Amino acid sequence: MSGKPVRFGILGCANIARKVSRAINLAPNAALFAIGSRSIDTATRFASENGFPASVRVYGSYQAVLDEPDVDAVYVPLPTSLHLKWAVSAADKKKHLLLEKPVALDASELDVILKACERNGVQYMDATMWMHHPRTAQMKDFQSDPQRFGQLKSVHSIFCYNPGPDFLANDIRVKPDLDALGSLGDTGWYCIRAILWAADYCLPEKVTALPNTEFNESGVIVSCGASLSWADGKIATFYCSFLTNLTMDVTCAGTNGYLRLHDFVIPFQENVASFYDVSSSRFATLSIGIEPIPSEHKVATDLPQEALMVREFARLVTSIRENGSEPEKKWAIISRKTQLVVDAVKASINRGFEPVGIGS
Amino acid sequence: MSGKPVRFGILGCANIARKVSRAINLAPNAALFAIGSRSIDTATRFASENGFPASVRVYGSYQAVLDEPDVDAVYVPLPTSLHLKWAVSAADKKKHLLLEKPVALDASELDVILKACERNGVQYMDATMWMHHPRTAQMKDFQSDPQRFGQLKSVHSIFCYNPGPDFLANDIRVKPDLDALGSLGDTGWYCIRAILWAADYCLPEKVTALPNTEFNESGVIVSCGASLSWADGKIATFYCSFLTNLTMDVTCAGTNGYLRLHDFVIPFQENVASFYDVSSSRFATLSIGIEPIPSEHKVATDLPQEALMVREFARLVTSIRENGSEPEKKWAIISRKTQLVVDAVKASINRGFEPVGIGS
Repeated sequence: MSGKPVRFGILGCANIARKVSRAINLAPNAALFAIGSRSIDTATRFASENGFPASVRVYGSYQAVLDEPDVDAVYVPLPTSLHLKWAVSAADKKKHLLLEKPVALDASELDVILKACERNGVQYMDATMWMHHPRTAQMKDFQSDPQRFGQLKSVHSIFCYNPGPDFLANDIRVKPDLDALGSLGDTGWYCIRAILWAADYCLPEKVTALPNTEFNESGVIVSCGASLSWADGKIATFYCSFLTNLTMDVTCAGTNGYLRLHDFVIPFQENVASFYDVSSSRFATLSIGIEPIPSEHKVATDLPQEALMVREFARLVTSIRENGSEPEKKWAIISRKTQLVVDAVKASINRGFEPVGIGS
Repeated sequence: MSGKPVRFGILGCANIARKVSRAINLAPNAALFAIGSRSIDTATRFASENGFPASVRVYGSYQAVLDEPDVDAVYVPLPTSLHLKWAVSAADKKKHLLLEKPVALDASELDVILKACERNGVQYMDATMWMHHPRTAQMKDFQSDPQRFGQLKSVHSIFCYNPGPDFLANDIRVKPDLDALGSLGDTGWYCIRAILWAADYCLPEKVTALPNTEFNESGVIVSCGASLSWADGKIATFYCSFLTNLTMDVTCAGTNGYLRLHDFVIPFQENVASFYDVSSSRFATLSIGIEPIPSEHKVATDLPQEALMVREFARLVTSIRENGSEPEKKWAIISRKTQLVVDAVKASINRGFEPVGIGS
């Protein structure tokens, strides 16, 4: 690793910023430089409670962080409705952009953000941490193997948690003016990303919301699901909810093999994570058993996945800064595809669970 | 256990009859008495290949088994299109009826079968073996617990296998004149039963087939799925296929807990089977892990689940014969509910994946 660490500013004191500020400290090529909140008191308290070094600058506005010339990159965990304004402002200040999900209220907003990143030559990445765990790459090795896995036929994903009545009444994630996508944007984002990941980011032909979407009193989605279907016969389903015990499964079934994991968003443990696979499963003689049985694979990691995310983001930023590389486009592309599916699920719900084509 | 064992006749030499004849031998209150095939040679070869005792009578017709006064009960593993004729004939000969799934081509056929059982006072049970594994009861204990599991919110079930091109061209299970329900009747039956089991046999309000049903050249379903939705907001999805690696998952998510297993139809091993549960899962501090992690529960059984099924069926038959008990209605009721959902999935596929209400 060459040169200076990438210096991060954080916009806002969301709970998730505690985890990501720790990750910035853990990543060898990144350093926490500044944090801004609408209130200087909140920012000061956040810095103190999270043990920020005294060197970290604390500001009473988001703009002040963007005005700081020594900030190379910003992490934006603001409510989704503020992403458009602050992500574009950051890019226009030549700050590289690590953007919390859901990245925007819809793809048209995201397009404005991505255009701002492009015209300013800054790196864009959404903060979908599990993409960066080494387990994810190992699972893709298995899933890409024509012998061991074959052609993908079906995917199912579920991400739920049950934060309780106070959350459902008061949290940012269920406020129509702050995170209007509710559980679809919060946990559904991950399910949709997992499905697209499994499908090698090939967009589905149709998206059909499952019946029984649940809303809170303000009309924000607190549970929903959808099916995604492709022209080749492949099908995926997902379910996301704020009303159900914390559950994080992905299962992928192929013609020759099967893959599953139960903690895809956040591994049960930080330093090691498992997945399970099996190939060419057969009924035993007389169908009194199954052979072979699935194998557990444990994948160790020295750095937690969120630090690996920060490290990869900082590597790309360093490469732009020091080698004049172009920004890596991949993250914008898969972020946009995820958002397009989110939008289609929302549209299908609004149209009474009709099938909806994917926008372009 | 009192008295004589229940004497079974088997109608037909289907592959599954090998497993069930072994189960009849293993069950302490049952005995194999006769087997009939359309061809005496086939029946003789089947008896010999499966090591039937010389005492087992071998017949060259199904009718001969029914005409045998010493046969108390019949197991019927014939192709589904033959169930109506032979199940009704058996009941009218006062034979108790253990009927392979799918039990009928539709609920109207099943109603004729059930009426015949009722007017003849014979026991009816469908041969859904996993219902009888002690694991199933333990899982229900967990799932019925308001503290540990809470209210059921979502279920997902998948049962697939990939028997290869010869099966898809030639097997009974994909012939429109024999098993017209294809994979929906064969593997989808189990998925639907698992969902109804999880929902305490409360029928869904609506059934909507997932897009992308696949058919073979004769128009028989070789893969499909559906969502089931209830008025209380609960939702279930399933996927069944003849084109995908052998996979047998059920996952149930409740407000307070989560339950899953990966070999629900046929346990990986015969004498012990696992399920996994967890309650009150929470993000660890900083959301860098999950606490607690799911627990594996191993459930041992002395008899394989199919022998437990035969034993329970024979127990009911013995109770009717020796104590004058009424036949146990539960099995007819849940069989019929399963068939109603099968019918609704088929109807939804036929109507282009429209939501379909459940018949009564």
